[in-house]
Amino acid sequence: MEVNITKAIIKKSLDMWLNNLEVDVVIAGAGPSGLTCARYLAKEGLKVVVFERHLFFGGGTWGGGMGFPYITVEEEAKHLLEEVGVKLEKIDNLYVADSVEVPAKLATAAIDSGAKILTGVVVEDLIVRENKVNGVVINSYAIEKAGLHVDPLAVKSKVVVDATGHDAYVTNILVKKNKLDIKVEGERSMWAEKGEKQLLENTKEIYPNFFVCGMAANAVFGGYRMGAVFGGMYLSGKLCAEKIIEKLK
Amino acid sequence: MEVNITKAIIKKSLDMWLNNLEVDVVIAGAGPSGLTCARYLAKEGLKVVVFERHLFFGGGTWGGGMGFPYITVEEEAKHLLEEVGVKLEKIDNLYVADSVEVPAKLATAAIDSGAKILTGVVVEDLIVRENKVNGVVINSYAIEKAGLHVDPLAVKSKVVVDATGHDAYVTNILVKKNKLDIKVEGERSMWAEKGEKQLLENTKEIYPNFFVCGMAANAVFGGYRMGAVFGGMYLSGKLCAEKIIEKLK
Amino acid sequence: MEVNITKAIIKKSLDMWLNNLEVDVVIAGAGPSGLTCARYLAKEGLKVVVFERHLFFGGGTWGGGMGFPYITVEEEAKHLLEEVGVKLEKIDNLYVADSVEVPAKLATAAIDSGAKILTGVVVEDLIVRENKVNGVVINSYAIEKAGLHVDPLAVKSKVVVDATGHDAYVTNILVKKNKLDIKVEGERSMWAEKGEKQLLENTKEIYPNFFVCGMAANAVFGGYRMGAVFGGMYLSGKLCAEKIIEKLK
Amino acid sequence: MEVNITKAIIKKSLDMWLNNLEVDVVIAGAGPSGLTCARYLAKEGLKVVVFERHLFFGGGTWGGGMGFPYITVEEEAKHLLEEVGVKLEKIDNLYVADSVEVPAKLATAAIDSGAKILTGVVVEDLIVRENKVNGVVINSYAIEKAGLHVDPLAVKSKVVVDATGHDAYVTNILVKKNKLDIKVEGERSMWAEKGEKQLLENTKEIYPNFFVCGMAANAVFGGYRMGAVFGGMYLSGKLCAEKIIEKLK
Amino acid sequence: MEVNITKAIIKKSLDMWLNNLEVDVVIAGAGPSGLTCARYLAKEGLKVVVFERHLFFGGGTWGGGMGFPYITVEEEAKHLLEEVGVKLEKIDNLYVADSVEVPAKLATAAIDSGAKILTGVVVEDLIVRENKVNGVVINSYAIEKAGLHVDPLAVKSKVVVDATGHDAYVTNILVKKNKLDIKVEGERSMWAEKGEKQLLENTKEIYPNFFVCGMAANAVFGGYRMGAVFGGMYLSGKLCAEKIIEKLK
Amino acid sequence: MEVNITKAIIKKSLDMWLNNLEVDVVIAGAGPSGLTCARYLAKEGLKVVVFERHLFFGGGTWGGGMGFPYITVEEEAKHLLEEVGVKLEKIDNLYVADSVEVPAKLATAAIDSGAKILTGVVVEDLIVRENKVNGVVINSYAIEKAGLHVDPLAVKSKVVVDATGHDAYVTNILVKKNKLDIKVEGERSMWAEKGEKQLLENTKEIYPNFFVCGMAANAVFGGYRMGAVFGGMYLSGKLCAEKIIEKLK
Amino acid sequence: MEVNITKAIIKKSLDMWLNNLEVDVVIAGAGPSGLTCARYLAKEGLKVVVFERHLFFGGGTWGGGMGFPYITVEEEAKHLLEEVGVKLEKIDNLYVADSVEVPAKLATAAIDSGAKILTGVVVEDLIVRENKVNGVVINSYAIEKAGLHVDPLAVKSKVVVDATGHDAYVTNILVKKNKLDIKVEGERSMWAEKGEKQLLENTKEIYPNFFVCGMAANAVFGGYRMGAVFGGMYLSGKLCAEKIIEKLK
Amino acid sequence: MEVNITKAIIKKSLDMWLNNLEVDVVIAGAGPSGLTCARYLAKEGLKVVVFERHLFFGGGTWGGGMGFPYITVEEEAKHLLEEVGVKLEKIDNLYVADSVEVPAKLATAAIDSGAKILTGVVVEDLIVRENKVNGVVINSYAIEKAGLHVDPLAVKSKVVVDATGHDAYVTNILVKKNKLDIKVEGERSMWAEKGEKQLLENTKEIYPNFFVCGMAANAVFGGYRMGAVFGGMYLSGKLCAEKIIEKLK
Repeated sequence: MEVNITKAIIKKSLDMWLNNLEVDVVIAGAGPSGLTCARYLAKEGLKVVVFERHLFFGGGTWGGGMGFPYITVEEEAKHLLEEVGVKLEKIDNLYVADSVEVPAKLATAAIDSGAKILTGVVVEDLIVRENKVNGVVINSYAIEKAGLHVDPLAVKSKVVVDATGHDAYVTNILVKKNKLDIKVEGERSMWAEKGEKQLLENTKEIYPNFFVCGMAANAVFGGYRMGAVFGGMYLSGKLCAEKIIEKLK
Repeated sequence: MEVNITKAIIKKSLDMWLNNLEVDVVIAGAGPSGLTCARYLAKEGLKVVVFERHLFFGGGTWGGGMGFPYITVEEEAKHLLEEVGVKLEKIDNLYVADSVEVPAKLATAAIDSGAKILTGVVVEDLIVRENKVNGVVINSYAIEKAGLHVDPLAVKSKVVVDATGHDAYVTNILVKKNKLDIKVEGERSMWAEKGEKQLLENTKEIYPNFFVCGMAANAVFGGYRMGAVFGGMYLSGKLCAEKIIEKLK
Repeated sequence: MEVNITKAIIKKSLDMWLNNLEVDVVIAGAGPSGLTCARYLAKEGLKVVVFERHLFFGGGTWGGGMGFPYITVEEEAKHLLEEVGVKLEKIDNLYVADSVEVPAKLATAAIDSGAKILTGVVVEDLIVRENKVNGVVINSYAIEKAGLHVDPLAVKSKVVVDATGHDAYVTNILVKKNKLDIKVEGERSMWAEKGEKQLLENTKEIYPNFFVCGMAANAVFGGYRMGAVFGGMYLSGKLCAEKIIEKLK
Repeated sequence: MEVNITKAIIKKSLDMWLNNLEVDVVIAGAGPSGLTCARYLAKEGLKVVVFERHLFFGGGTWGGGMGFPYITVEEEAKHLLEEVGVKLEKIDNLYVADSVEVPAKLATAAIDSGAKILTGVVVEDLIVRENKVNGVVINSYAIEKAGLHVDPLAVKSKVVVDATGHDAYVTNILVKKNKLDIKVEGERSMWAEKGEKQLLENTKEIYPNFFVCGMAANAVFGGYRMGAVFGGMYLSGKLCAEKIIEKLK
Repeated sequence: MEVNITKAIIKKSLDMWLNNLEVDVVIAGAGPSGLTCARYLAKEGLKVVVFERHLFFGGGTWGGGMGFPYITVEEEAKHLLEEVGVKLEKIDNLYVADSVEVPAKLATAAIDSGAKILTGVVVEDLIVRENKVNGVVINSYAIEKAGLHVDPLAVKSKVVVDATGHDAYVTNILVKKNKLDIKVEGERSMWAEKGEKQLLENTKEIYPNFFVCGMAANAVFGGYRMGAVFGGMYLSGKLCAEKIIEKLK
Repeated sequence: MEVNITKAIIKKSLDMWLNNLEVDVVIAGAGPSGLTCARYLAKEGLKVVVFERHLFFGGGTWGGGMGFPYITVEEEAKHLLEEVGVKLEKIDNLYVADSVEVPAKLATAAIDSGAKILTGVVVEDLIVRENKVNGVVINSYAIEKAGLHVDPLAVKSKVVVDATGHDAYVTNILVKKNKLDIKVEGERSMWAEKGEKQLLENTKEIYPNFFVCGMAANAVFGGYRMGAVFGGMYLSGKLCAEKIIEKLK
Repeated sequence: MEVNITKAIIKKSLDMWLNNLEVDVVIAGAGPSGLTCARYLAKEGLKVVVFERHLFFGGGTWGGGMGFPYITVEEEAKHLLEEVGVKLEKIDNLYVADSVEVPAKLATAAIDSGAKILTGVVVEDLIVRENKVNGVVINSYAIEKAGLHVDPLAVKSKVVVDATGHDAYVTNILVKKNKLDIKVEGERSMWAEKGEKQLLENTKEIYPNFFVCGMAANAVFGGYRMGAVFGGMYLSGKLCAEKIIEKLK
Repeated sequence: MEVNITKAIIKKSLDMWLNNLEVDVVIAGAGPSGLTCARYLAKEGLKVVVFERHLFFGGGTWGGGMGFPYITVEEEAKHLLEEVGVKLEKIDNLYVADSVEVPAKLATAAIDSGAKILTGVVVEDLIVRENKVNGVVINSYAIEKAGLHVDPLAVKSKVVVDATGHDAYVTNILVKKNKLDIKVEGERSMWAEKGEKQLLENTKEIYPNFFVCGMAANAVFGGYRMGAVFGGMYLSGKLCAEKIIEKLK
């Protein structure tokens, strides 16, 4: 019996891996913007894989604001959470949601739309051929965290999205390793409204086949920080999906 | 604007806390059995709070088996995953599910049934009056992990469930601090079928108002380990809910 | 009973937070200069909150000099300690005080003047709108120390004071994140008399609504280090308060 | 100038140490009970030294309950905080106080009564002659924390008080090193009212010249935990002082 | 191209896993005795998998004695190293070998005999049915070292060998988890000749289908330590193989 | 007996060290390229020592790709593994090999060709006289890892090879300490075919008597990363050997 | 030149090792008692090796008392420090010495008497044959601290002395590994005079060929702690030497 | 009794401190060059204090070369070790000494010449007035290592010597904090003869009242590394002393 279980798990894993080595879009980061982006891409029928470094999705959402377990969105972004079934309560002109419910439902919706989320996988580099991004180089988070020295594998994709948040981790790797003429500015201090506006401007393709979305976008272009209004995150995720769909048509 | 967000989050958080200081059931641990138990209790209209030490729910599910991202259940437990919308694939006589989809959907279903999941909260002790459990003593996981010395708070409940898995963490505290005449045996080696059977026998009230469910139950009674068949986990979670409903009627 | 305690604590915390989200002055750092500054501001009737990273106030005072548990002030600063009731002993031309009594009484006096001291709270960023500082972005020290990834909250204020000492921590964040044309020089080596004189010159508003005081001021302008004469610290704290009162009138 | 400061600090430290090597009472731990005990002993004219392991006093008070920065006391203990100038707000039948104000004012009052508080000093052993405690063996917390191997020094006293809280740290050393016939039971789970009552019964001399007070007392005798009602702490501190005064008369 | 590589590696890996889930013998530990045992078993046509916790084989051999990079064997064991091509130099009545050459050639020979060595895999438990060992429960060393909480998988085998050295790691798990009536004594101090003799007596089946070999055998029975003479290790590995072959015939 | 063993090991170590203090070639790093290079140099009769920082050889090979225990080579490099007896399986146009067998057999072959591999030895600096490399400065890995402050020793050689992989560790030291006009570019992102071609161009003498080979060569010249095709590694190792043989003739 | 240095150091080291593999006495620990014992044994012409775990000798002497850099001895032990040239100052009835001068001169004198001190060497076990201690099993401190798994070497001696201080480290190993009927009691609390008297009684052969001296002796027999009077340490070291000389005559 | 010891130690310590707050020369670092320099300065009657960060003197000498416990000097420096009584053995044209005897005797000689060595004291900054060094700012190593935030003290001196070795730690602080126009080059690779010659040229006053000696001198000027020939260290220490004596005359 124990061995049947093992067999079933390994067989299924093998199939899954072989089916996901060439995809339309790889998204690095399963936070709010990455999960929203994945949902819209998958809905459109694109083959999407989200690689998330940690074993769990959700990024910085879980702890709400400073450990108070709620997050807020404003009017414009409200439907992006309602769409996945998150309950919202209006307080003044803001909509408040449970910081545990949000990641659960964003992920549920992304999966049900057909996106594949693989957690515990680090995007440690990119495939770059003829000055175009062609996919990602991945490794196991457990191996990285354990400090072991093990070679990575590669996954091919038409488009790669950096949705890794404040650090713009993947953009930094792309820029540094290939000495690109792109400057990763880093976020400015907080100015919620302005930061949110900039975020949408900054959500775009910054190198052939390579997009930034969510907080990573503001980090790249030096936009203002948004604070605990996650509205911009969802809007940016959706916008990024739209731009990719446009491109891949 | 930034301050409105802060205000909304703090208001909502403190309301939530004030509304959850006296509940019907506290479940310690938001793994497969805890989430299933919470779902069935909440469906019945009971007021349930799940306290989870980590910032995220899901327990040991995320990494599947040894990092291969799938889990399995057998025929008997299949409906408990289907019920929450998890897609299952039959391989031989087992049902295989995506190890990221499972926690997302168990949590989504528990929340939608009305259970409250609070992550980043450690159950560090119990309230015990007149040889009965009366609630739990909780603290912040951040405080615990940071090694700071800060006093806890308390939540009153009619019943407390230990769903903390292999360690039976809360049962150990109860037994050691109060020098109870209960021996926490620790799991035996693996024997999937037998372990699963024992698990259901071991899911019960072991001290007035105190139940064990999921792997914690086998840990208490020295049952066999079940391995990567999570079927027993869901069945135990449901059974525990049924016994509590019976008791609280 | 246990739950009544919890309820009282949470209720009171909620009120306190809601009452302190918009204040006149936020001071980062509850060391000698921050506490003195807070005392003078609060005396004047301004609404002041001091955020201190550690769970306790007092900064580098506790260990005296190299662990010998005394500190010294010179004639000019003596009254600033006497005012709060610290006993001083004259040795040559210096006044020596107990390094544990000093923080206790500075804090007691600041609190009794009406300042609010919140410990375990990190000022991790600023609110900056239209090239003016508008408040601070805060997080929990426990969360930071535990290495958890959780979003911050924000507090609005008319003025922000950096009283974080040698590192000028908040000034560094302001400058780096916003690429300001301010150079944080870092302290020079020790020259007690000259360092003290410079300190008072350096205590000022260095960006709209943003002041530096105490050792942070010398760190910003590259002044000499003062060593274990804390006289300058108290004088700088008071001077900073005076300049802010002037501004806010 | 820099050297004058150094000279003054070292001179004063020398005097202080030489004046505190033989005292009436040594209290280990500067938390709520230790500081209260010290205040009452010093008021009576006894020579009291409090050794506190950390650089700061206050024990577990700073973070309030679970990081919510307030503590509570009940009617009976209220005057013990009012006496030192702590502001209390009544919520239902409890009195709530600011968790930062409490340690500041308890320490201020203890110092003003004449007690000497030395922080950063660990009581690592006792002097025991002819089956009586005769003083304490102390070392530097910095040395301990740095993991250096350095010998301790000794301070003689008529009485030693263990006010180190939940661990009953000093009692454990006394018992283990000298194989005493005393069993340190460890606290039971929480039951606030009963725990408080037991605490007062447990505050006493448990070995010639050796007293336990505060949470250490319940830890020794296996009393119930009290939670965030610190009322018992202050009452126990005062009671312990009274018993010592009685004994030393 | 990059993706072809990935595809080839994953295909081959998962085939390999599926082919090694039911084997004749699982050996835990790829040190000198485990590798020798594997070589003799595989030569006989048995299906053997060696699971080694570290990413590399060789156990404690690499550093020779105290970092001097040589090991020794005596006359009796010499042929067991010569057989795999290790060069030996006679010094007095001992044979000295290069401590890097030894693991390289033991592994090469085991592999060429048909044994499969899987490194980075921890045997964390056993399958035990009807009081017989039926296989092992394994996990990834990276996961264990990273401190992640991930479920294991299982491999079925007719026989399990504990060749984990001084700790007798697997035997300890077997005994503790199943509360067996076997006492793991731990090695005694060093007495090379006697220790070696005991080692061969102690190499045997100690529970149905469960053998100990190499230093683990002396650890179980409290035999003398052997020091840097690895002769006994190879002899024990061979002897263990012979006993298993006898049993499985 | 125990002492005879000690004596034999120390005697042999002494001889070995004295015989290896002046050699033809020192190779830093016992990964795939270093071991291949060593094999070809030793075959030619040159005196070669390989110093490897870790206690074991093999570099990043052990974990295969992302922990899937296989590696691949393409047609051109296939014979370099076959030559040492590694079994290869063709999958599409690639040859797959066991990631544990490869290091075992590369090391076995290098040793049998006459190369000396010393593990646990760090090349921490170079001997540089008259603008030529003259040997290496070595220390113990244990000492380095333990953070002890101990002086190194030196080994003279006609040629030094940096085969330390991605970091080009030794080249970095050479360049930084001597302020050479060589820029260590760091690898670019992955492009397997192009990276492999560049690797062979980059394998060369970059400073008098100092060669780079394997991944270190691409790191120095900013070539593309190769991913899990280790073919280039072996080819580079062989090419490097050929260039050295040419030079030393 | 660099290589000549290396050659000279290695030659000399290996000669030294070969000359010290069979000695009269091995002393574990180069603190005050071990160095004094070594001095007296070596003066008598015995071949003595002191193995000290740390890279430096001196044990707990360096930091004096609690970091105040002086130690004291009383009248009886004074000559044992004067003999090695330590300057003493009389304060009341005690003799005070510089805590840095003491280890320097004790070591100088031991070396000049002919004892060999090897630092950075851990005594990790004993050779025990026919219920007699026959020598020690040693390893490198760097290896131990680095957490590497490397086998030890062995040194034969007629007598072994445990002078490792409070832990009685070697005695503990002897007792535990060989399940001896000796109980290591651990020191009692401090009582300087009595502790000193007991120390001399406890300095003796406790198992064939195995002596305890210095603080280890009181730790074995549960004697009182002595505090910062090191007089007993020197007296015990000398006494131990006398008893060994007596035995070996 | 215990208290008398404490009293004597504290009295003596504080006297010592008060006597050493204004000295002729402060030397940072008690390695070979610092101890030699101290010896020659003290012989000349100058008041010298050596502050050493670690609790023990000797710097990198203890482990000899790579853990082989010997060091070497050449003809020219031989008398500097003989002078302090170190036994030397000639091997070829080098003189080999025991790496434990060397620090013991260098320290003994420095102390006997009248220098004061204070270990466990870090020179963390300098006193700089009117562009001249006037003394040092010191703190406790225990405090630094424990990560506590405690203010330093200051010691006045006519001259300060940086003898901290490879890092030139104090020079780096001087240069960085005061933005001096001095470049700390860092050592080049090894070339023993040339490095030694440069070392003597580099031993000098590099800023008013501030000298560098030993390895720090080569680190400042980018001289070649010397390896395990410590000859230059002693010569540099002596030369530095001569230059200071010249200056202070």
